[in-house]
Amino acid sequence: AAGADNDLYINQAVVFIEDAIQYRSINHRVDSKSLWLYRWYYSRICQWILGLTITIILALAFIETPSSLTVTSDIRYRLPPWDPPCGLTESIELLCFLVFMIDVSVKSYLIGWEEFRKTKWLMAYILTLIVSLADWIVSLSFFCTENVRIRRILRPFFLLQNSSMMKKTLKSINSTLPEMASVVLLLAVHLSLFTMFAMLLFARTKDGQQDKEWVGYFRNLPDSLTSLLVLLTTANNPDVMIPAYSKNRAYSIFFILFTVLGNLFLMNLLTAIIYNQFRGYLLKSVQSSLFRRRLGIRAAFEVLCPLKETPANAQELYVSVGDLFQVLQKVEMDSRCKRAIMRSLKTCSCDRLSAAQFQKLFEELDKDAVKQHPPSPEYQSHFMRKMQFAFGHPYFGYLGNVVALANIVSICVVLVMDADKQPSERDDFFLGAINCFFILYYLLEMLLKILAMGLKRYLSYPSNRFDGLLTGILLILEIATFAVYGFPHPGWRPELMGLLSLWDMVRLVNMLIVFRFLRIIPNMKFMALVVTTLLDLVKNLRAFAGILVVVFYAFAITGIMLFKGAVVPMGNIRKNVISWLSSITFRLWLFTIYVIYLLSFNLICRWAKTYFVAWWLISSVIWVNLFVALLLENFIHKWDRRCHREPLSDIEYQRTVELMFRDVLEEPTEEELMERLHQHPHLHLCR
Amino acid sequence: AAGADNDLYINQAVVFIEDAIQYRSINHRVDSKSLWLYRWYYSRICQWILGLTITIILALAFIETPSSLTVTSDIRYRLPPWDPPCGLTESIELLCFLVFMIDVSVKSYLIGWEEFRKTKWLMAYILTLIVSLADWIVSLSFFCTENVRIRRILRPFFLLQNSSMMKKTLKSINSTLPEMASVVLLLAVHLSLFTMFAMLLFARTKDGQQDKEWVGYFRNLPDSLTSLLVLLTTANNPDVMIPAYSKNRAYSIFFILFTVLGNLFLMNLLTAIIYNQFRGYLLKSVQSSLFRRRLGIRAAFEVLCPLKETPANAQELYVSVGDLFQVLQKVEMDSRCKRAIMRSLKTCSCDRLSAAQFQKLFEELDKDAVKQHPPSPEYQSHFMRKMQFAFGHPYFGYLGNVVALANIVSICVVLVMDADKQPSERDDFFLGAINCFFILYYLLEMLLKILAMGLKRYLSYPSNRFDGLLTGILLILEIATFAVYGFPHPGWRPELMGLLSLWDMVRLVNMLIVFRFLRIIPNMKFMALVVTTLLDLVKNLRAFAGILVVVFYAFAITGIMLFKGAVVPMGNIRKNVISWLSSITFRLWLFTIYVIYLLSFNLICRWAKTYFVAWWLISSVIWVNLFVALLLENFIHKWDRRCHREPLSDIEYQRTVELMFRDVLEEPTEEELMERLHQHPHLHLCR
Repeated sequence: AAGADNDLYINQAVVFIEDAIQYRSINHRVDSKSLWLYRWYYSRICQWILGLTITIILALAFIETPSSLTVTSDIRYRLPPWDPPCGLTESIELLCFLVFMIDVSVKSYLIGWEEFRKTKWLMAYILTLIVSLADWIVSLSFFCTENVRIRRILRPFFLLQNSSMMKKTLKSINSTLPEMASVVLLLAVHLSLFTMFAMLLFARTKDGQQDKEWVGYFRNLPDSLTSLLVLLTTANNPDVMIPAYSKNRAYSIFFILFTVLGNLFLMNLLTAIIYNQFRGYLLKSVQSSLFRRRLGIRAAFEVLCPLKETPANAQELYVSVGDLFQVLQKVEMDSRCKRAIMRSLKTCSCDRLSAAQFQKLFEELDKDAVKQHPPSPEYQSHFMRKMQFAFGHPYFGYLGNVVALANIVSICVVLVMDADKQPSERDDFFLGAINCFFILYYLLEMLLKILAMGLKRYLSYPSNRFDGLLTGILLILEIATFAVYGFPHPGWRPELMGLLSLWDMVRLVNMLIVFRFLRIIPNMKFMALVVTTLLDLVKNLRAFAGILVVVFYAFAITGIMLFKGAVVPMGNIRKNVISWLSSITFRLWLFTIYVIYLLSFNLICRWAKTYFVAWWLISSVIWVNLFVALLLENFIHKWDRRCHREPLSDIEYQRTVELMFRDVLEEPTEEELMERLHQHPHLHLCR
Repeated sequence: AAGADNDLYINQAVVFIEDAIQYRSINHRVDSKSLWLYRWYYSRICQWILGLTITIILALAFIETPSSLTVTSDIRYRLPPWDPPCGLTESIELLCFLVFMIDVSVKSYLIGWEEFRKTKWLMAYILTLIVSLADWIVSLSFFCTENVRIRRILRPFFLLQNSSMMKKTLKSINSTLPEMASVVLLLAVHLSLFTMFAMLLFARTKDGQQDKEWVGYFRNLPDSLTSLLVLLTTANNPDVMIPAYSKNRAYSIFFILFTVLGNLFLMNLLTAIIYNQFRGYLLKSVQSSLFRRRLGIRAAFEVLCPLKETPANAQELYVSVGDLFQVLQKVEMDSRCKRAIMRSLKTCSCDRLSAAQFQKLFEELDKDAVKQHPPSPEYQSHFMRKMQFAFGHPYFGYLGNVVALANIVSICVVLVMDADKQPSERDDFFLGAINCFFILYYLLEMLLKILAMGLKRYLSYPSNRFDGLLTGILLILEIATFAVYGFPHPGWRPELMGLLSLWDMVRLVNMLIVFRFLRIIPNMKFMALVVTTLLDLVKNLRAFAGILVVVFYAFAITGIMLFKGAVVPMGNIRKNVISWLSSITFRLWLFTIYVIYLLSFNLICRWAKTYFVAWWLISSVIWVNLFVALLLENFIHKWDRRCHREPLSDIEYQRTVELMFRDVLEEPTEEELMERLHQHPHLHLCR
């Protein structure tokens, strides 16, 4: 029984350490079978299947009936979209629901009844599944002819509930809502007061010539509201004020007041509020992750502690090194970290570890991976060493940048000269010849660099990998061109032979050359800073982007259901509108602008207006502001750090959010950790 | 001689204290005559004359020849603008130049040669005056027929050099320029790379039907650049992508990438940089003001010190209270502060003041004016006291708000019903009757409030003043209406009698009622916070607004000179464009949008394009970002304060920037002050 107990403790420790690594909560069952189930549930394959299922159920919308995923969006040219037979998408859906049901039951079982009651997300998950299944049954019993499919709108929920980051972000957004609502209320008051003013100012007059403003924009209350709302987005500015302005310049005061108050003050106030709310958001989230990590490690320590029987002197708790070795061998973690921990465990002379030592051992997890580039090869010959010095020197890289710039300029010149020429007049000789020359230079540069640095060192720099990959592709393209069309000569303008015409090949090569020019980025300090900030931002924005996708998906599905029957022959623009609407490729920002554009032409009925105003508020106003807030936070933090410390020249740090805030994070105290451990619903520590 | 010396010291102290009050530098001459000149120069009348001169010279542009300040901007209807005879505006200009010459010579004399050499602003001032005078002479010798008038572009400089806040702000903007330039460079790189991509992607094809995109937007390099630049302002979105998108949906990826990178990332990066730079701007400026104040006070103390002769024990310096009384009587300052200082000086039992006590005495200057409302009258009769309780209660105010809301709603209902009616069908009876009723209620409310609070207390609240003023105007309007048109009755629709028609009168009354509704603002907590933030912001933004006016003025004058001869009959739109350009009413933001709109229609030649892109960058991008930065700073500060302390209910603080930062300001040390005093070019302290 002692051996079995020991095995259980080892397994518990393994799971707790894995929880710590993945920043997971440790509040789950800890008996042997549950631990096995838990590790199985969080194994890579299971999580991958779950992710795939979510992707499939979301992607179903692209092939379901009212979709229009065709190459062209122009209703005149496009082929009728493929109509899947009834039962096909439905059976895929059923499979997905089955996976979700297994998911929800395993999850609920693992955290136990006590925790389940507190977890609203799980209950919502179950509710969503029930509603979806009911809707599915209705759908099948109507042989897929019913119009309203609620389960489609519910689909993004599956994405939402699977990501803890997204849930956290949603909570954070939720807490900002009251203040955002206040500003939106202010905007509404602003809008309605100015609407009344406008209706009084631009009332109908006896002289028909004089009231162009009234006819165009302020005919009645809904028209006036729309005109001013669109003015708030600046889409119909200055059209809306031209008739009044040409009557009397003083009317412009009204419009200027409205725009300055609404656009400059109130809209930016929204930015300020959201920024203020989100200033601490990242820090708080990283802090809670740190707490979870420390808690997991501490829990592992506690269960490994062999002195469970002697609760008297709690000060002298130790874990044996042998046990820890056993645990470490079972834990799934990054091999670099594992090696580092093993190494420091071996160098440690003692055979027992205190709690503090135990924590310290796992601090390796928090450390940044210092990337060491492999050394350059050491050549014997004097000549080779001179070559190595010359081509390993940064100046050689700068020369490469200059050559790339020269290439860009030459392409630009040719483009300007050829811009107005008919395709039949065009002569590809010049471009072909210079590109051939430049690509040869690029190849030479790559080979010389590999010679100087050695292949391994060359490949260890991301900029070299980017460079080498593009050079390789360019070379292959060039060889293919020559193989099909022969070498460049004056009047080199053969007809289509093979997949792509010569002109397309040349264009492709040129585009790749322009793209390759981006290799200059790391050489410019400010650019490098900006690019790394942007990359960081993208990492931190994943949760926000996810929520945006969820909202967009729901909006798109609602839009399809609302406007499905609205395709009436009312001119090309209208058709375009509907075709835009009924396709659900994710157009984000662009879509918003388009909506504003639509609003400004009063093309769509009142129902659609409400729908679009809601969409504009959510996607454009709120999301863009969130984005600005995060960008400010990230950039200012980075900027401050750049000023404080000198950049380390040769060592590249892997940047993570955790590391960015390491200086300001607070370590949780022993008491906090132990209090939380004692609150654990399934683990009963004697002390 | 001792008496004359004493007088000199007293006068010096007076001037130094006045310097401290006005946050002026104390580095000026300190002999008797210079002090007299200094006080004369900074007297209210002299500064007023200087301000008036600057206003006049700037306003000249409105009546000078190529101006078009007419009521309508429509070229078809407007009368030819008044053409002043040659010599009229020129002689006004000469007068202004004379004033400026006096100004610059007095200023230069007062600070002395040593300081003058260090002050680049003064030298630039002199240079500007010389160039302006030379241009003026050229102008007169050509009898006002010359086209280029450089002195007009130089005019805003006079505004700039007269405001120390604006000079400081300009310095601050100047220090942000390198980083802004980096981002603008990034934007340029982004734009040019994407332009090349676009030209390669949307090249001319053999099929004329297929290259709508090429024809419309990417015909040649300038066209492509313009298309993408305008896309950066989102003005031609999504028009620019429609042809490509309807060919193949995948083309939208190009536009989305461009918009997201350029608009979402790079533009907001500019915001982040400017915000980061200006975070400390206000604090720094307030800190330096504080230093000037303390320095002035300390200088006054030093010159008043009678112990100049005994430099041995510097610790025991004292100023006699009698001397200080003499000084205080001569100093020009806020009477409230003066009274407070006198009072605390009288209560002080000692007859000598140490340096610390002296400083402390003048801390009254930094204190916020606590506004105490006068007490309500005390009535004898029981009935009156009950009335007072009822109508002095906040609920009575809320009832007033509800009634105002009801009035607004009724107006709104009438507006909606009458929106489509012909003016001849309209019946003003209903509106007239309800407005009459509501205005009577407002009058009653005002009278009852005055009864309950007493006139003085009533007037001490700004919201009551606003309310009372509007109620008074409404009453006068209503009485005038009744006097001219009689009481309302069904079919109350008489013809025009007097200045305004009945319909105009009713409209005016309605607008005032809508305006009066703003009295609800102080009752809503969040609204009150927003409004006070905005008011603060307006105070802090004066310097920025001034600089914007300077830039705008220079741009407008340049625009007039560039496009003066460009009025050719090319359709109404073109005419409108020119008429817009040639008028220099300050249209700020609106103007920018208009410029973008113009750019998007490719109406204007390449010269104009450069001009407008520069204007867009400066006014829209940079200024708006500055504004956002200041708003963030102000709002976040306020928000934090609101969370930290409870609002004081009955006492209203006068908010100033200085007070906002009082908690974080650092007092200058004794050593810093004395070091500065010893560097004074004209005051030679023995110690």
